[in-house]
Amino acid sequence: VSVTFPRGFRAIGATAGFKASGRPDLGLLVADRPAAAAGAFTTNRFPAAPVVLTRGRLASGRARAVLVNSGQANAGTGEAGLRDAEATAGLVSRLLEVRPEDVLVCSTGVIGPRVPLDRLRAALPAAAGGLTEEGGPGFARAILTTDPGPKEAVAETGPHRVGGCVKGAGMIGPRLATMLAFVTTDAPATPSLVRELMATLVAPAFNSVTVDGCQSTNDSVLLLAGGAAGGPALDRGDPQAKALAEAVEEVCRDLARQVAAEAEGARTTIVVHVEGAGDDDDARAVGLQVAGSPLVKAALHGGDPNPGRILQAVGDAPAAFDPSRVKAWLNDHVVVEAGLVHEPPSGVIDGAGPVIAITVGDGPGSATVFGCDLTEDYVRINAGYRT
Amino acid sequence: VSVTFPRGFRAIGATAGFKASGRPDLGLLVADRPAAAAGAFTTNRFPAAPVVLTRGRLASGRARAVLVNSGQANAGTGEAGLRDAEATAGLVSRLLEVRPEDVLVCSTGVIGPRVPLDRLRAALPAAAGGLTEEGGPGFARAILTTDPGPKEAVAETGPHRVGGCVKGAGMIGPRLATMLAFVTTDAPATPSLVRELMATLVAPAFNSVTVDGCQSTNDSVLLLAGGAAGGPALDRGDPQAKALAEAVEEVCRDLARQVAAEAEGARTTIVVHVEGAGDDDDARAVGLQVAGSPLVKAALHGGDPNPGRILQAVGDAPAAFDPSRVKAWLNDHVVVEAGLVHEPPSGVIDGAGPVIAITVGDGPGSATVFGCDLTEDYVRINAGYRT
Repeated sequence: VSVTFPRGFRAIGATAGFKASGRPDLGLLVADRPAAAAGAFTTNRFPAAPVVLTRGRLASGRARAVLVNSGQANAGTGEAGLRDAEATAGLVSRLLEVRPEDVLVCSTGVIGPRVPLDRLRAALPAAAGGLTEEGGPGFARAILTTDPGPKEAVAETGPHRVGGCVKGAGMIGPRLATMLAFVTTDAPATPSLVRELMATLVAPAFNSVTVDGCQSTNDSVLLLAGGAAGGPALDRGDPQAKALAEAVEEVCRDLARQVAAEAEGARTTIVVHVEGAGDDDDARAVGLQVAGSPLVKAALHGGDPNPGRILQAVGDAPAAFDPSRVKAWLNDHVVVEAGLVHEPPSGVIDGAGPVIAITVGDGPGSATVFGCDLTEDYVRINAGYRT
Repeated sequence: VSVTFPRGFRAIGATAGFKASGRPDLGLLVADRPAAAAGAFTTNRFPAAPVVLTRGRLASGRARAVLVNSGQANAGTGEAGLRDAEATAGLVSRLLEVRPEDVLVCSTGVIGPRVPLDRLRAALPAAAGGLTEEGGPGFARAILTTDPGPKEAVAETGPHRVGGCVKGAGMIGPRLATMLAFVTTDAPATPSLVRELMATLVAPAFNSVTVDGCQSTNDSVLLLAGGAAGGPALDRGDPQAKALAEAVEEVCRDLARQVAAEAEGARTTIVVHVEGAGDDDDARAVGLQVAGSPLVKAALHGGDPNPGRILQAVGDAPAAFDPSRVKAWLNDHVVVEAGLVHEPPSGVIDGAGPVIAITVGDGPGSATVFGCDLTEDYVRINAGYRT
């Protein structure tokens, strides 16, 4: 049920014809009343038009509706693309009778082509009329591109519910906001609490997954708190805010893990735990270097532990640490210690996904990073994506 | 003839049994008299033992002999690996009757295992006895691992000759010294001129090639000037030094291009020219981001121009530029201009390797970067490298 698990949200997935495949490609998510909202976006120097629009509108800290189209990224489309995004939001605003500035837009798909507005205009009225509180799964399906299936997660804490969904299978890199992700809650969280959750939990979770290190022009993560659960406004420092934070983190980490597990061509999820770094950022940098290494990814795909490649990747990480203190385990077998590579017993890579644990010192920084193996299918998918 | 094209150098390739395949795996290069020498090395935090040894010895600015073994990288081998490297150099020193501190060592192969010194001891006397002035091709072949064949280049300028060879097909990243490369000249260059050539021409050439962005523990580039051509010492600023620099650059760029062309699994070389950056480093960073993008690489492998991925990669480059001024061409067709993606005509990717030209402003910085497509074979090679 994903984004409609929290009360006070309705959603739908529809088919406008943006995708040649005829699969659902139009998603609409609406809060019954203005929600406190925050977002995190790509830092690519060519952000897509909907990123520019949505980032600007979130300065208000509130939102009512999110429209998503899949098939065209509306990136590399210049001024015309910006006008398209505004027109799109305007259509939603009129149909739902909500303020234009409370409508957010996200796009995903091929970079370059414009969104066919005539198809959007034709499909939108029926979609708006079909919004329901059970529409989360349809929404989660409509936002997909090369993803094999929808990725959803929910959590509940006391009176509050949290739900989310995510799309993203390739062009997934480790920097801020590496996919389209939508997280909702019915907690009456204030805009400042929502911003804090975004900065400290939501964005880091989605920054801890890597498929190919490529940062999209469209990456956006949105968090909406509608308040339908009732109760007094929930602000930073409130006791209930801590439980809400844990639920939000649980949903985000679950979604991030699913992105790695269902990445383009992936057969195996690679989990890298890093501890003992100076801070969490350094720990994440080490984890991303290992989980993102094409040589580690290809070796693990082949069932070869190749511990020397783990050493190589750790040594190449943009983080501060003393190499002589690095220790690494592969599925609980020591493979690196004091600069020495140890060959694990054969069969150390069993059917389950490999888990690499690394300590780089005795600092307080830690991170868990999700990656995937590199397969012939990743190449095949990306050599023929548009054909 | 590669490294023995310049007069005053002898070399040989031999088979010591380091590789299970039975292919040549021991290379020895010797200058008839002490050569002015400089090197550039990996910045990986886990440098291999021979890197540590050779880097230290080059502080003297001179060298007589270089021993290379392929099969074991002697990385991740700790103190024992360092002792092995020193013992290796000692054997060469005694056999050739040269000073131990003038012997350099390079290793390439699997990270973790130690070099079998007994096999080295058994093979070295015959190798030392077989050194010839025609040994360059044999040396160039003995240093290979997954390379499909030797990579050699030569140039001549006035009285001076320059020759070189390189190995490297995977674990090739854009940072300093991304492979084993050996460049010789018979010019009587001083150590300070050799150092300058290394810093300004040799290292940048090999930093302008990317296969998979992985920086090896063993990367080493060595430049040796033996002086056998005779004539007065050639120092920085001498008129003849400029001609020598051009010849050295020609050899290095040729070798770098060959690394990309013969990279693991590659079918096509991708050339990226970047101009108008603030400096050459920024230009190189843009080129490496495009040539190194798995999505660009896979699309070009599939014959799909997918210009949106070029936009995405440029926008993600760690360099300073004004995105609105970026213009890009694919095989002479404009594909990015003023933030807009333009679809080139079909068939723009013909049989020849794709050439991407990018201007990012009107600054003086430029760079040419060599990359390759990403193929199913790259995955196959690296999933099964050790098996």
